Amino acid sequence: MRATTIHSPYDIRVEHVPDASVRQPGDAVVQVLRACVCGTDLWAYRGESARQPGQRLGHEFLGTVTDIGPEVTSLRPGDLVIAPLSWSDGSCVYCTEDLPSACPNGGIWGAVGSDGGQGEAVRVPYADSTLVQLPADAASDDRLLNALLTLADVLGTGYHAALSAGARPGASVAVVGDGAVGLCAVMAARMLGAENIVILGRHPARLELAQKFGATAAVTERGDAAVEAVRELTGGHGVHASIEAAGTAEARNTAIAATRPGGAVGWVGAPHGSPLDTAMLFIRSITLRGGIAPVRAHIPTLLPRILDGTIDPSPVFDGTVALDAIADAYQAMNTRTSLKVLITP
Amino acid sequence: MRATTIHSPYDIRVEHVPDASVRQPGDAVVQVLRACVCGTDLWAYRGESARQPGQRLGHEFLGTVTDIGPEVTSLRPGDLVIAPLSWSDGSCVYCTEDLPSACPNGGIWGAVGSDGGQGEAVRVPYADSTLVQLPADAASDDRLLNALLTLADVLGTGYHAALSAGARPGASVAVVGDGAVGLCAVMAARMLGAENIVILGRHPARLELAQKFGATAAVTERGDAAVEAVRELTGGHGVHASIEAAGTAEARNTAIAATRPGGAVGWVGAPHGSPLDTAMLFIRSITLRGGIAPVRAHIPTLLPRILDGTIDPSPVFDGTVALDAIADAYQAMNTRTSLKVLITP
Repeated sequence: MRATTIHSPYDIRVEHVPDASVRQPGDAVVQVLRACVCGTDLWAYRGESARQPGQRLGHEFLGTVTDIGPEVTSLRPGDLVIAPLSWSDGSCVYCTEDLPSACPNGGIWGAVGSDGGQGEAVRVPYADSTLVQLPADAASDDRLLNALLTLADVLGTGYHAALSAGARPGASVAVVGDGAVGLCAVMAARMLGAENIVILGRHPARLELAQKFGATAAVTERGDAAVEAVRELTGGHGVHASIEAAGTAEARNTAIAATRPGGAVGWVGAPHGSPLDTAMLFIRSITLRGGIAPVRAHIPTLLPRILDGTIDPSPVFDGTVALDAIADAYQAMNTRTSLKVLITP
Repeated sequence: MRATTIHSPYDIRVEHVPDASVRQPGDAVVQVLRACVCGTDLWAYRGESARQPGQRLGHEFLGTVTDIGPEVTSLRPGDLVIAPLSWSDGSCVYCTEDLPSACPNGGIWGAVGSDGGQGEAVRVPYADSTLVQLPADAASDDRLLNALLTLADVLGTGYHAALSAGARPGASVAVVGDGAVGLCAVMAARMLGAENIVILGRHPARLELAQKFGATAAVTERGDAAVEAVRELTGGHGVHASIEAAGTAEARNTAIAATRPGGAVGWVGAPHGSPLDTAMLFIRSITLRGGIAPVRAHIPTLLPRILDGTIDPSPVFDGTVALDAIADAYQAMNTRTSLKVLITP
């Protein structure tokens, strides 16, 4: 089969690799219908996160089950399924506490020795607990498939950020970052009942999408000026809930500074760069909550909202390329020409 | 009147200063019956926190109201009262949200221009909202007075740390630091229903007191070895709730590393030294919550527990000196000869 690999920074290839196959009794094989490129994939692309030469890429995909191991009980070949960004055993203490991201038997697609989502097929460990079945008729609905694909990462991660920050009715919310996670966080904050949602970003098309998703104000300044603007929008206080959805030191400290005393910062951007402003956290009694999103745990909440039309995150995708041209997708996202690119094998 | 001042590191004096008096209509004057020295006072003592020459010291005191301004309605001269570590207006949005530590009209005793608790009397702004009345008959009960004095800071701060960390029935708790705040955090964690409480410290008398307050295990190692020991005590996982009650970088990172995925660190030690281990926080989805304790907000919860005998924090005091000898108290605490020293004017 064909799959995306990385050999060195900016050297993305589509290569022939061994076919995905059942190796453990709980495995399933999923033929990928749709995958996409994540902002965190760009860290590998740019060499900011180390990868071994030839390592697979991609942790977002949905597709059709083509084979199952003898212990798989809830899925059958032909089922349409979504995979969250990591597999998990479903039975450990962390999985039962809705923190599958801490599963000791878990892992993220594309880790050494595993298949990546940006390929023709994926071997899925612990298929019963990892995969979530989708309605069969979704397969013929392009918009719906796109929306469902966001359950793999960006929607679940944005939702986790909004939950972690304490977005709720009556709370003011700031979202730092206008990438796909930030936009999904806006949507999630709205879904959680927040009425005043400020997006911090600079890209006009993304800010427009943020507004469509529920943002009530946009702040295009950066750094101290952005913090000042958020405070002005909130009677001088800052927001109850800040969402850091960029993963940079500047975004983190902007999120902290834009939060009012007693508020919380939800962070889902992996730590990059210089340290947190801990003095500000301490003096203002601001809670820091989040981390790698337990996306699998949020699918049962989010899937019904997509299916019933309450939310439609599909517009986060603004481009599609075939698997063989995936290097173009990386380039377009790296230059911020595209927000998030779909891959069709 | 006499009051404690600091002129440079290690230069603690008791000097004649202008008498505390009513200056604003909401002020009260409190004649100090008991004060004490806090671990954070030692930062000023050692020159780690800047002070202006002649600045007052002490933020923990209880005493008797001797004068009130015309707008004070809930107190009368003769009332026995406890003051929390900071004054607050009781009417701002933060005070009404139980976060008086963020009151824009608030301040900490000993700040430039205010009286300190380590003196004969203190002018108390916003007396109605700042002070809490105590039963008159407590004045004749030495043990009870000592216990009540802990409401000024260490008990409320330890309780805030335990709450922030999520101490609760079924949760395992680690307390990093065997100072008075750490010991009070042990007591608070127990009060909140935690059954497994590990104290991390090295001082035998303090560990004994921790056990008396509810600790079920003690870890005397430091750094990685301490983390390993906590994990061994918790089935390899780490604790649900870690309390950082020392204010050092090492204590903070030990608290983080000793916490299990999805757990929380309650921090009440002001940030000192090198940065937080944010990667560990992120990867393990650990919440960081706390900050300057809103001690005033916790008095209504804690005072009745002291009065009905549910808790008795009075043993955190292991020495008493007269105001004129307060330099000895600083020295004894700085050398860890004393845990916490009472001051009687």
